[in-house]
Amino acid sequence: MTTAPFRHPAAPVSGAPLAQPSLDVFVFGTGHVGGALLRQIAGLSRAPVRVVGAATTRGHVYRASGVTPEALAALVAESAPPDLSRLVPALVRHPRPLAVVDATGSLEVSGIYEDLLASGVSVVTPSKLACAGPQARFYRLRDLGASGPAHFGYETTVGAGLPVIRTLQTLTATGDRVRSIRAALSGTLTFLFGEVERGIALSDAVATAVARGYAEPDPRDDLSGEDIVRKALILARAARLHAERAEVRTVGLVSDAVRTASPEDLPDALRAEGQAWSERACAAAARGERVRYVATITADAGRAQIDVRPLAVPAASPFGMLGGTDNLIEITTDRYAASPLRIMGPGAGPDVTAAGVLSELLAIAA
Amino acid sequence: MTTAPFRHPAAPVSGAPLAQPSLDVFVFGTGHVGGALLRQIAGLSRAPVRVVGAATTRGHVYRASGVTPEALAALVAESAPPDLSRLVPALVRHPRPLAVVDATGSLEVSGIYEDLLASGVSVVTPSKLACAGPQARFYRLRDLGASGPAHFGYETTVGAGLPVIRTLQTLTATGDRVRSIRAALSGTLTFLFGEVERGIALSDAVATAVARGYAEPDPRDDLSGEDIVRKALILARAARLHAERAEVRTVGLVSDAVRTASPEDLPDALRAEGQAWSERACAAAARGERVRYVATITADAGRAQIDVRPLAVPAASPFGMLGGTDNLIEITTDRYAASPLRIMGPGAGPDVTAAGVLSELLAIAA
Repeated sequence: MTTAPFRHPAAPVSGAPLAQPSLDVFVFGTGHVGGALLRQIAGLSRAPVRVVGAATTRGHVYRASGVTPEALAALVAESAPPDLSRLVPALVRHPRPLAVVDATGSLEVSGIYEDLLASGVSVVTPSKLACAGPQARFYRLRDLGASGPAHFGYETTVGAGLPVIRTLQTLTATGDRVRSIRAALSGTLTFLFGEVERGIALSDAVATAVARGYAEPDPRDDLSGEDIVRKALILARAARLHAERAEVRTVGLVSDAVRTASPEDLPDALRAEGQAWSERACAAAARGERVRYVATITADAGRAQIDVRPLAVPAASPFGMLGGTDNLIEITTDRYAASPLRIMGPGAGPDVTAAGVLSELLAIAA
Repeated sequence: MTTAPFRHPAAPVSGAPLAQPSLDVFVFGTGHVGGALLRQIAGLSRAPVRVVGAATTRGHVYRASGVTPEALAALVAESAPPDLSRLVPALVRHPRPLAVVDATGSLEVSGIYEDLLASGVSVVTPSKLACAGPQARFYRLRDLGASGPAHFGYETTVGAGLPVIRTLQTLTATGDRVRSIRAALSGTLTFLFGEVERGIALSDAVATAVARGYAEPDPRDDLSGEDIVRKALILARAARLHAERAEVRTVGLVSDAVRTASPEDLPDALRAEGQAWSERACAAAARGERVRYVATITADAGRAQIDVRPLAVPAASPFGMLGGTDNLIEITTDRYAASPLRIMGPGAGPDVTAAGVLSELLAIAA
């Protein structure tokens, strides 16, 4: 018998007896998101999950009997970097239900999901690498996570802690069909557009975004638009639409000069680019519009037509009103046809992303 | 081992073998929502749920081996109204996992939840009667649905199919704390405000809302505001805040003359009231504002301060832009503090409500 996602997996309100944690967790990556996750697990009053290890590029620890949060960092620091060819077989032999969290951006770690899932180990990840790669690979991971004892959780790949993926899954599972999705999927870009609208130069806005941690340390990762294309692919696939990278139409956010600039040349390249952004923002404002970088996904006989580009939207519309580092996902379906279902809010940040990962772990543990 | 809510409970994409339905369902009420639910279940290609009966005020059928959707209506029509003192014991003895759906507004049916849950039968309901009553009763239902084999699902009591309740549960389960919720919880009122803003008289707008099925057949149920107070209580409780009906502060939407008018006198009473609505809408428009009926829930040391009243909001804000029959729920928490998490969309309608009920059934079945 299983547990509905509609009740609290953790912290029952009644005086239920303290139960043995029902899920063990191994965490790859103890940086922003991984660190926040470990703190959140430690902070739960009656956690149904228990940490049994962690790995970083510098060291790793795995103890089947559990590791206290206090001991974890020291044990990782004392040991050698993990050898995945030895660690994965050990995790697969773990004696109790186990979930592996991938809070890295590592291609190598994303490469072990299939072996883990096939062996009954659940995988929960905010990393987009596996889900946004070839669609056939995503299907294999999803099928492994849907047919055996293991679960594959990728809720936090889009919108961080916002309930986007599971809403799409719920809609389609009940027989609804997604017609289209329009989405602003980058908190960084929402912030940059907002600053440019206020008259700030793009180069200064990028510097602020980096300083505040909104942008990646190398802001070209945000400005290339590749991150948004990946999220759009994942959204389309979560909506049960076929979508391959090569078919996505993109209109670049910045020129090749910015995309290919070396870190030293980036400020100059941004200054040159910034003028065009400011002019575009002014022209839009004069028409009562604002510029947003919008991913549009349209269903076409089971396939997704994906278009990612800067779009002029009415200032007095949900897209036009986006502020801060908010994301907006607007879902139109057969049932939500007259007016879409909209989810809006901060779509990035270690705490909300970690909370999204934790909620997937709690659902597996329940 | 259990199933995460983050994957499809239904329709695996791989060639998984057809499994025996893992949950049987008995439906009270076969009107708008109950009827849509039965159609949706019949429409699923590989439904993990099976209908074993239904009851209305006119008749009922219960067959432990299952009832086809085609036979159901005729069997109900041929039989006598249910005697709950005999039907409930029969349902409790059902040989397989069973969920009872209450798609009625019946106080009598809401009275059987506790016996069902205590006996291991799950309950899923869009009816607000049990959840918005005394808080102690809601706690008992929630605890019964969290500690045994049975589940208590009330997602569709607020916002119909919008993912509101489970979002609040996910936030609080992962250690986040709700600070405040602001919500427009009535599609009918959103529609009426929109019409009055366009210069339509309130009495005409109400007539349109009834004709289109937005309002209850007796529109006084919408205009009294009691429906919104109930939803606000449920939201507060889902956010783990104590909230009792007697503590809710409300500023009425209409005068006692409307609330207590007989159906024949209602049009006259509405005409008298309408002038005040139109004047209020005009005055707000002159200030760049709009009037919305907003429930504000503020956390205060574990208790909810609930305030429900007409509020002037900026026209260029999510509340100001609400159209059609949309609901908006704006959740501010420790983690979503700088900018709230917002969920917006049609918050009523048989199809989206039934889909919400079905998704809870699928999660129980998974």
